[in-house]
Amino acid sequence: MSTEPRQSSGKPLTRKGQQTRQRIVAAAAQLMYERGLTEATLEDVRAAAGVSGSQIYHYFADKQALLLAVIDYQTQGVLERQAPLFCRLDTLEGLRRWRDALVELQKRLQCRGGCPIGSLGSEVAENNPEARLAVASGFVRWEAAIRAGLTAMHARGELDGDPDDLALATLAALQGGLLLTQLQRQVRPLEVALDAMLDHIEAHVPRPV
Amino acid sequence: MSTEPRQSSGKPLTRKGQQTRQRIVAAAAQLMYERGLTEATLEDVRAAAGVSGSQIYHYFADKQALLLAVIDYQTQGVLERQAPLFCRLDTLEGLRRWRDALVELQKRLQCRGGCPIGSLGSEVAENNPEARLAVASGFVRWEAAIRAGLTAMHARGELDGDPDDLALATLAALQGGLLLTQLQRQVRPLEVALDAMLDHIEAHVPRPV
Repeated sequence: MSTEPRQSSGKPLTRKGQQTRQRIVAAAAQLMYERGLTEATLEDVRAAAGVSGSQIYHYFADKQALLLAVIDYQTQGVLERQAPLFCRLDTLEGLRRWRDALVELQKRLQCRGGCPIGSLGSEVAENNPEARLAVASGFVRWEAAIRAGLTAMHARGELDGDPDDLALATLAALQGGLLLTQLQRQVRPLEVALDAMLDHIEAHVPRPV
Repeated sequence: MSTEPRQSSGKPLTRKGQQTRQRIVAAAAQLMYERGLTEATLEDVRAAAGVSGSQIYHYFADKQALLLAVIDYQTQGVLERQAPLFCRLDTLEGLRRWRDALVELQKRLQCRGGCPIGSLGSEVAENNPEARLAVASGFVRWEAAIRAGLTAMHARGELDGDPDDLALATLAALQGGLLLTQLQRQVRPLEVALDAMLDHIEAHVPRPV
């Protein structure tokens, strides 16, 4: 999904330009995460990033271009933060550790913000097809990371369910758990949703007879 | 949650007034569902409901008051549409029928719109505490309807898991499945998420020994 960032004119960026662009995207991502997409204006982003209005337009033709960059940035962020755990998702113990880390993160955030990708997705799903597809493709990458672990278990004969279905159901449980946790400002929905899914996966682990 | 609707001045409504108010809320709900909360302006609502601007303010002091009425309206709608199925959620067969009805509805909607309550919740969660609490309380009612069925199964000795946890996990699976279905415009995430949860519940049904 990530392509080399460019100026809105299409010219390649210098290294300093890349840093400025990244600062704008990070500021926009934070504001959209805290306030919601439409409450975060370009003027807010400009002030938060400490750049001029013309600098923003130097990098982004319009708010849509900035939004697509934010979706990519948030997807990268989610995947990179979880990467050390993803490579362990091929054991029940690794899956439980991943669950614990997701729950701990929500506790640290006081259950604010929900999923950085899912909440953007919900806001754009009915009014911005290009952004909807960008979010959907972010979720495809996330699902693939979960599926990789379950597929490895399956290949080793340690899982007798369908790894594709189980991965998608796990991502759904995670998303629904995060939304309810965000709304209730308590971590229980996320815990209960993930525990149910991981118990379900565990039930598909063949036991020695 | 529902209290007797009144004029924004606090006076009770006549029957005709109640109908006009209901028409405004229904139009606002539809627009917010189709376009997202912030894209649906009071002017759009006014035009869609076929009323004057002063009529809207006669019933709603501001957009916030209208939004709270929409959250209540959507919660009522979801609960009423599912009510005939809720009373069957105390058997596995009833749970599977409910799952089928939810999937069929998404097919009819071409997977557009997501959950009418959940998508509002995602939009208000970080910038509107009063609306966030209203959505959270709508979900509490939904969860209670699912829990009632599972609690009845448990009381009859037909479920050996915790009905509270299973109900919350089922609602989370449903919400996450709906979000991914909405983003991907295909019904598979919802199907797979609910099937995993119902299989999990089925695994908690004691078998005759």
